[in-house]
Amino acid sequence: MARSNSGESVLTRVDRVLSCFDADNPTRTASDIARHARLPIATAHRLVNELVTLGYLERTPGRRIRLGVRLWELASRGSRAAGLREAAMPVMEDLHAVVGHHTQLSVRDGFEALFLERLSTRGGSRNIIRVAGRLPAHACSSGIVLIAHAPAEVQEELLASRLKRYTDRTPADPTTLRSLLADVRSRGVAVADGFITPGATGVAVPIRGPQEDVVAALNVVVPSGDGNAPAQISALLAAARSISRALGLHPRLDADLTSM
Amino acid sequence: MARSNSGESVLTRVDRVLSCFDADNPTRTASDIARHARLPIATAHRLVNELVTLGYLERTPGRRIRLGVRLWELASRGSRAAGLREAAMPVMEDLHAVVGHHTQLSVRDGFEALFLERLSTRGGSRNIIRVAGRLPAHACSSGIVLIAHAPAEVQEELLASRLKRYTDRTPADPTTLRSLLADVRSRGVAVADGFITPGATGVAVPIRGPQEDVVAALNVVVPSGDGNAPAQISALLAAARSISRALGLHPRLDADLTSM
Repeated sequence: MARSNSGESVLTRVDRVLSCFDADNPTRTASDIARHARLPIATAHRLVNELVTLGYLERTPGRRIRLGVRLWELASRGSRAAGLREAAMPVMEDLHAVVGHHTQLSVRDGFEALFLERLSTRGGSRNIIRVAGRLPAHACSSGIVLIAHAPAEVQEELLASRLKRYTDRTPADPTTLRSLLADVRSRGVAVADGFITPGATGVAVPIRGPQEDVVAALNVVVPSGDGNAPAQISALLAAARSISRALGLHPRLDADLTSM
Repeated sequence: MARSNSGESVLTRVDRVLSCFDADNPTRTASDIARHARLPIATAHRLVNELVTLGYLERTPGRRIRLGVRLWELASRGSRAAGLREAAMPVMEDLHAVVGHHTQLSVRDGFEALFLERLSTRGGSRNIIRVAGRLPAHACSSGIVLIAHAPAEVQEELLASRLKRYTDRTPADPTTLRSLLADVRSRGVAVADGFITPGATGVAVPIRGPQEDVVAALNVVVPSGDGNAPAQISALLAAARSISRALGLHPRLDADLTSM
């Protein structure tokens, strides 16, 4: 792999350039990028120019830089996120229409839940997630479902780590969390009342792939204390089954989904 | 920029590796990648290993390679596709619920319409688009809208090129297409009856950004000849206005959307 004088690979530097952009900073100047990616200005200019040529970055009329649609196109065509989202969306639309609350799809990435899709209710309960947002797995209903079905070594590593307490309801001590995970495995549903935001309850169920392994979580966020959470469970379970069936009936996805 | 012995940049090679994957080929082996990306097998292995470390590629349990969720996450957080999609989705859900037909959001990339979002109707009329799919701009209602509002030099270049005829209704000759573009600009809507697939009619309207420039197209696909197309126009126009307002009221998107 080609390396700069400092011994870094080109790709490590490219990753730092691409990582400068997010929903709060959708555009930046080249010198801004150099500073955030800790690169010499000439190096940043060279990398930006080549990334623009390839379509991974675009220039705005004001000579600012943003991520290119090419990056989005590549990711949307081929990643496991794309296949799952494709199978889940029609079912999620129906679920959202029926339950009338935020409806979300997520996968586990390390100790976090990465949210692939969110159908929002305007004026609904507070929801801190945006699409492609992440939450710590132990502090949200989806994360609890995903960790409950993760390999044993992942669970043990999480249980041994220092877990942040967001509210006084966050299951941040290992004994509480371990019994919660066991409970979720046996009941098939996780209810997280105020784990991360007071007043909001997440209700999550697992989505299984063709080999019965849990590949994703489906959840809704409802206002706490209005007795709504239990009412959503049947609708969620039925929707998760529909998505699992859509995944299993799609033989091309078999190999692609078994490790999720 | 670091270059290989053959004079190619590392990024050009990385782009060829990432471009190997799509919905039809979501996973590949390393030797498969070497062949498709026209790289020596040792080079392909080195690149794949580094891309896996960065999270741009992932290994499946069967030792196959696929695109990583990190790529999807980056693109979903920062690209113009992400901002537009975020503003459009709640409105598109309502539109889809009312019209009951495929509802799609697209942007222009060169002479093609790139589809950012599709809400599908199971059992609806035939629709050849998948998310992140492309159609030639002259052969679909969304593309006609996007070209009608593109810079003059883009229109002239398209009109001077050889345009493929998909059906006997495709506007593939320059005179027909030029008058169609003028008509779409004055009427504010494009109706494409069987331009690319016999029996399917696309109806598209422009979405305007904060500076009144057209940044995207919103369309529905309805069965041809059932008199449905005209009935959808008011709903489409109202939805496009809602999305434009959402874009304009979001000052952070100003700079980001003006060049779309």
